[in-house]
Amino acid sequence: MSETRDLPLHRRGFLAGAAVTSLGVAQARAETQPVAQGAASSPAPAPAGNPLPGYVSWKDAEALIVHSNQTIETRRAAFGTGLITDESVLYVRNNVSPPPESIVADRDAWAVEIKGVTRPGTITVGALKRLGLVTVATVLQCSGNGRKYFQDTLEPGQKMSGTAWTVGAAGCVLWTGVPLRTVIEAMGGPVADAKFITGTGGEEIPQGLKPKDIMVERSVPLATLDTVILAWALNGKPISLAHGGPLRMIVPGYSGVNNIKYVKTVALTATETDAKIQAASYRIHKLGEKAAPNQPPVWEQPVRSWITAPLKDGRAGPMVIAGVAFGGVNAVAGVEVSADGGATWHKADFVGPDLGRFAWRLFALPIELPEGTHVLVSRARDTAGNIQPEDVPVNGGGYSHNGWRGPAVTLNLA
Amino acid sequence: MSETRDLPLHRRGFLAGAAVTSLGVAQARAETQPVAQGAASSPAPAPAGNPLPGYVSWKDAEALIVHSNQTIETRRAAFGTGLITDESVLYVRNNVSPPPESIVADRDAWAVEIKGVTRPGTITVGALKRLGLVTVATVLQCSGNGRKYFQDTLEPGQKMSGTAWTVGAAGCVLWTGVPLRTVIEAMGGPVADAKFITGTGGEEIPQGLKPKDIMVERSVPLATLDTVILAWALNGKPISLAHGGPLRMIVPGYSGVNNIKYVKTVALTATETDAKIQAASYRIHKLGEKAAPNQPPVWEQPVRSWITAPLKDGRAGPMVIAGVAFGGVNAVAGVEVSADGGATWHKADFVGPDLGRFAWRLFALPIELPEGTHVLVSRARDTAGNIQPEDVPVNGGGYSHNGWRGPAVTLNLA
Repeated sequence: MSETRDLPLHRRGFLAGAAVTSLGVAQARAETQPVAQGAASSPAPAPAGNPLPGYVSWKDAEALIVHSNQTIETRRAAFGTGLITDESVLYVRNNVSPPPESIVADRDAWAVEIKGVTRPGTITVGALKRLGLVTVATVLQCSGNGRKYFQDTLEPGQKMSGTAWTVGAAGCVLWTGVPLRTVIEAMGGPVADAKFITGTGGEEIPQGLKPKDIMVERSVPLATLDTVILAWALNGKPISLAHGGPLRMIVPGYSGVNNIKYVKTVALTATETDAKIQAASYRIHKLGEKAAPNQPPVWEQPVRSWITAPLKDGRAGPMVIAGVAFGGVNAVAGVEVSADGGATWHKADFVGPDLGRFAWRLFALPIELPEGTHVLVSRARDTAGNIQPEDVPVNGGGYSHNGWRGPAVTLNLA
Repeated sequence: MSETRDLPLHRRGFLAGAAVTSLGVAQARAETQPVAQGAASSPAPAPAGNPLPGYVSWKDAEALIVHSNQTIETRRAAFGTGLITDESVLYVRNNVSPPPESIVADRDAWAVEIKGVTRPGTITVGALKRLGLVTVATVLQCSGNGRKYFQDTLEPGQKMSGTAWTVGAAGCVLWTGVPLRTVIEAMGGPVADAKFITGTGGEEIPQGLKPKDIMVERSVPLATLDTVILAWALNGKPISLAHGGPLRMIVPGYSGVNNIKYVKTVALTATETDAKIQAASYRIHKLGEKAAPNQPPVWEQPVRSWITAPLKDGRAGPMVIAGVAFGGVNAVAGVEVSADGGATWHKADFVGPDLGRFAWRLFALPIELPEGTHVLVSRARDTAGNIQPEDVPVNGGGYSHNGWRGPAVTLNLA
């Protein structure tokens, strides 16, 4: 069903067909509905929706969809053709209300307890900054990003709760901090039976509730110690409260919930935590079943991509289809694009810097599209040989969607 | 005079000395003057100064020094340990007042004339976006960045005009646009005698003045056609008017003035332009002499580096010295750091992603410094073997300073 053709970016045939002669001006000026090519073009107007909650009032409201006070999605047009997602347009997802703003008043005084090491103790952000420095670009993505594409395919009687994210519960950002390994080694190294890194968030537990039911405490395999960082900066600036400042535990390649905000404890543990958010949530299980510790946890993100431009109907002719692709813990190895809903595929080129295996890459395909309706989709593969499937079997929590058909863009060209 | 020792980032000896046991908390909390480690720490308070002019009122005033309405410098502390410079803290330097804000109202309608090609014509930004897509990270730096270090060494009677920039007339940003070569090829390729790319800015020339005296029109060698782009986005968002939107000609590795804002004409020419800003300015000449076309133009940026953290006096002990380094058109190959004013040198490590040869790289050196006064300096070398000199012979315009002694940081530790 698929036919892959190479379409190099600068091929003469494509360029010869482009409207760049002296006629180009008049043609372009006559466009009343130019094809949007990313954020640099006219963005879609924000429909009336929920206002931004106070703790993220500084964000760009026009770039965001407020599903609720704790679930705020980036509009696809706001990704534009940017390699780094600005904090002002980055999605927000909290499981519990954030702590008070006062915790970022003196960031360097925030203390994190380190347990499960030979010499356990507590260390402040100020002291962490004296220990080491590392910067890593990661795709931060909600485990439920793309849940809408599961929900859209449910049969009558089936039900899946959770935010109907499309592609916008994700972003690619730069974290700066200290390698967790540096901290662990400075404290004498892991205890002998350590198998997991268990991080606990600094959210306040409302009185009368059982802490284990509410607390954001997650465990990830100890093998991630090679890449986990304790981060105090996002895109070069102190991490905002909304995104986990003063200190966030970043597990590169792992879905959002594993990246603990306002981290107050990091423990090397023999077992996974029994907190509800780990034991009975964020598991891959059948629709209708309950989550349980024997099911696979939502940890590593699968290979994924989506198109970010063009998104708006416009004129037929030459154009550039662009998007983002990433491979979770693996680098993304290649991307194909189809303009006919997956019948034929074209190899896209990566454009711009490679920020490392945990980041997304921009891809682009120059193409000439005639008048009519076109269904644009993209399909990425990672360095481990994983490739995006057309569809993904439904799971009860609606996690880890990486099918290529769901996020299709339908374009009507005149 | 120099002794280079390797100090790997994670060496055990360093970590063993770090204050990260259970005592660490009390120590860190007791700090009344913590050592600043980049933007995440308490930034220096902004002294009373000139307010931000209206066209950049959206910028972060606390991160900037307003020398004049057309010369606005990034505070060194605002670089922090960020790999990408946020537009809100990026320096501004204009030779002529910007055009009215109305030119960015309909960005896609902005038209650039292409001359010196087989089929000359005009093309809009909207049409350029259909031609191709590329993203490149570059160090954008004013030709006069570091002029203060020249001015500080002048002898009585000597005079050098121009803004007294220290290190803050620079930033590392991501540009998105189309390769100029793609546009040129679509228009039939260069005319036979083309030797330069000459770009003209869209500034308005006040009535009664000779255009050639005022216009921002610069020529760069045709060889740069391999890398020049026509850019519509900065850090993934439409370029602000202050930074040259709707369209800027980016010449990677070349100093700021060569990157033409609001570019309205790109011509492939047989000779350099005779506009004053090219012929009789931005030339390397002796102090007291006038600039003239037979002197070397200010084009490629030399290899350079400076320390960005720590910048504030604080406590003795382990810490991380960090900074940025770049090589102009060459990649930066290595950086050494000295904490004793250049008497002994230590090899620093690069940290974080490599954004390509035109970008800067972060470097870091974990070190333990005792009580007393320390003079921190950094010295970079590029892949072509160029190395920063201790000092640079004065030139009349105060351009292209890349000495390592000038931007030294003096640190008093208790």
